[in-house]
Amino acid sequence: MSGSWIADPAFRADEPFGPQTLPYGVVELPGGPAVAVRVGDHALPLRPIAGEFAPELADAVAAGSLDPLLALGRPAWTSLRARLRELVTATAPPPGAVLVPLAEAPTRLPFTVGDYVDFYSSRHHAENVGRIFRPDGEPLLPNWTHLPVGYHGRSGTVVVSGTGVVRPHGQRRGDQGPEFGPSTRLDIEAEVGFVCGGPVAGRVRTSAAPDHIFGVALVNDWSARDIQAWEYVPLGPFLGKSFATSISAWITPLDAFAAARVEVPDPGHPRLDYLVEDSHWGLDIGIEVSWNGTVVSRPEFAGMAYSCAQQLAHMTVNGATVRPGDLFASGTVSGPGKHQRGSFLELSWGGQEPVRLDDGSERTFLLDGDTVVITATAPGPDGSVVGLAEVAGTVLAAT
Amino acid sequence: MSGSWIADPAFRADEPFGPQTLPYGVVELPGGPAVAVRVGDHALPLRPIAGEFAPELADAVAAGSLDPLLALGRPAWTSLRARLRELVTATAPPPGAVLVPLAEAPTRLPFTVGDYVDFYSSRHHAENVGRIFRPDGEPLLPNWTHLPVGYHGRSGTVVVSGTGVVRPHGQRRGDQGPEFGPSTRLDIEAEVGFVCGGPVAGRVRTSAAPDHIFGVALVNDWSARDIQAWEYVPLGPFLGKSFATSISAWITPLDAFAAARVEVPDPGHPRLDYLVEDSHWGLDIGIEVSWNGTVVSRPEFAGMAYSCAQQLAHMTVNGATVRPGDLFASGTVSGPGKHQRGSFLELSWGGQEPVRLDDGSERTFLLDGDTVVITATAPGPDGSVVGLAEVAGTVLAAT
Repeated sequence: MSGSWIADPAFRADEPFGPQTLPYGVVELPGGPAVAVRVGDHALPLRPIAGEFAPELADAVAAGSLDPLLALGRPAWTSLRARLRELVTATAPPPGAVLVPLAEAPTRLPFTVGDYVDFYSSRHHAENVGRIFRPDGEPLLPNWTHLPVGYHGRSGTVVVSGTGVVRPHGQRRGDQGPEFGPSTRLDIEAEVGFVCGGPVAGRVRTSAAPDHIFGVALVNDWSARDIQAWEYVPLGPFLGKSFATSISAWITPLDAFAAARVEVPDPGHPRLDYLVEDSHWGLDIGIEVSWNGTVVSRPEFAGMAYSCAQQLAHMTVNGATVRPGDLFASGTVSGPGKHQRGSFLELSWGGQEPVRLDDGSERTFLLDGDTVVITATAPGPDGSVVGLAEVAGTVLAAT
Repeated sequence: MSGSWIADPAFRADEPFGPQTLPYGVVELPGGPAVAVRVGDHALPLRPIAGEFAPELADAVAAGSLDPLLALGRPAWTSLRARLRELVTATAPPPGAVLVPLAEAPTRLPFTVGDYVDFYSSRHHAENVGRIFRPDGEPLLPNWTHLPVGYHGRSGTVVVSGTGVVRPHGQRRGDQGPEFGPSTRLDIEAEVGFVCGGPVAGRVRTSAAPDHIFGVALVNDWSARDIQAWEYVPLGPFLGKSFATSISAWITPLDAFAAARVEVPDPGHPRLDYLVEDSHWGLDIGIEVSWNGTVVSRPEFAGMAYSCAQQLAHMTVNGATVRPGDLFASGTVSGPGKHQRGSFLELSWGGQEPVRLDDGSERTFLLDGDTVVITATAPGPDGSVVGLAEVAGTVLAAT
């Protein structure tokens, strides 16, 4: 950023983590965990500069988790972001400010996850999975175009990017009844997640979504397809998903996406009132999935059939409350093209079409030691680019 | 209890809440919420007598929630219970002890719910629902006899007994596409729930279940059948369940069920190793469901196909951790007889066979103003009876 005291070449408007982005995370410092904001390739812990903020923000910026900030709600989020912009674009640092290179700033799961809900809002993904899992039926079930299908996942096994993922054991269908052992079809799901905050509320209208969505993260919903295929009828996925869900260490504020908002596709029939948006909450996010360093897919989030505002309105239309720390994810993001698919189940078409990596090796599902990194960007204001921090994980052998 | 300083006629071994039971809850006192133990029809708050307990228990008994006690683990739970037995059976009260009649002791949700998992472990319930929802298919799906089918519910809407349940809005199947409005098929599910504690752990063997199960409560998993039927394929129940799940205000310690342990039925084929028990964790609990004061069902928990130990082993066999405050429930408890069915969906056979109440009225699903109370008992030591505290709720009109 020209003129800023932050002399990091990655802290520029044409880089994903310039002053137009300013995502929040929690870094481990010698004095304990601290809320921080990411500036380029550095973390700026907020506790040492807590005196720079309004009194009502002091506890939240001095905390060791994003929980207090999530609870404060939209007006506080907006004022904190505005003040941060001033501080990081100033020519001189605020007294006491310390910049920590990301490589020297271990991150932790930045908030306490309340309920975790996973949607299924990519039409291409739903159709692909339908064709693979239910080859004799219609790929898209009748409810799909009328509501954002979703289910609850396990919040206790949401982990921060970089956490190793142990290959899960479980039951799978066998010729002579079920077999038991380490999963042989370990997969990813590239998703976009939404971190909730603000007052506890039931029945949130689409127009009120910004009052309850603090920010956006990338999510990898690791999936054991063999376990899932055997267990999932009639009550849905359970152990095939619950062993680990990874999320970015840095949560990009919803405010950063003002220039990325797009209309969700027309479902082809009128929407029920509670799913109508009076402004667009689809987001033009471009995702990149790399497998051991080879980019294998570039899913586009703009084509998702339901927006975060519609998902939140649906999730609470029955009166269910949303509370700070609740997390909901979009479902696997897959586009129409083969190289836009957000899971290896789809990329390898059920394991039948191996994916070739740059080292010449071939993959269908994940091998022990494989590393998957998902990154993403969106258009920012004035031609800038807004980043979503990577979600990365390496597969560890079953124990 | 003959000789005890507690002069409550309900505090006897032949009553459900005598000294053989001693369930824990949290009551609202003028000085704030307090952990308490139930003795007959009174609550004994522990904070005023915290000095009576070993130092390692002091923080937990003086707390305003069961969370610290859940975290302490099995050895602490056992020693606390032993000390409590001494105190409540003594001839004189410990200094400072106060007994509060239950009617004057409002209760609150006694612990912070982590993940909530609901199983589906009654064969009769699964067969009945299969016949009603999928009349053209086999009632029991192939996986059912090999694993305890389950799914994650919404922990943020678990509420304490006595909380009103607002009729949820939602989508349901209509002749001309989906309709939207208040549920017309609001139902209950009578279940037994298990409250987890102890160290955070993955892959809990059946033999280690007592180290991670603190106690037992009754659960009413309120269900909107019209919403559920439309939404549940392919990812399972979501809004049809997530509006409210009620649990007892008092959690009966697992230790109280020593005389109630029974073997679960043979599945008819060998079990996979991780589901084998070396001692029995089926529980002989008799449940009673009353609808506006009429007992409409008496489900028997002893016939459930999977025990709590098997459910916990399954839930964690993929490495998923269990942590203090996690709650899992058995699934609807239904027996072979018509008057042993644990849901009104089954009692009214999908709404076709109304249930007659003592006031002469007929019901299929719940009407606004209806009250459902579920109670249960189990055999205790030496011919005593162990109680599970009621879970009660009244239906409030949609808002």
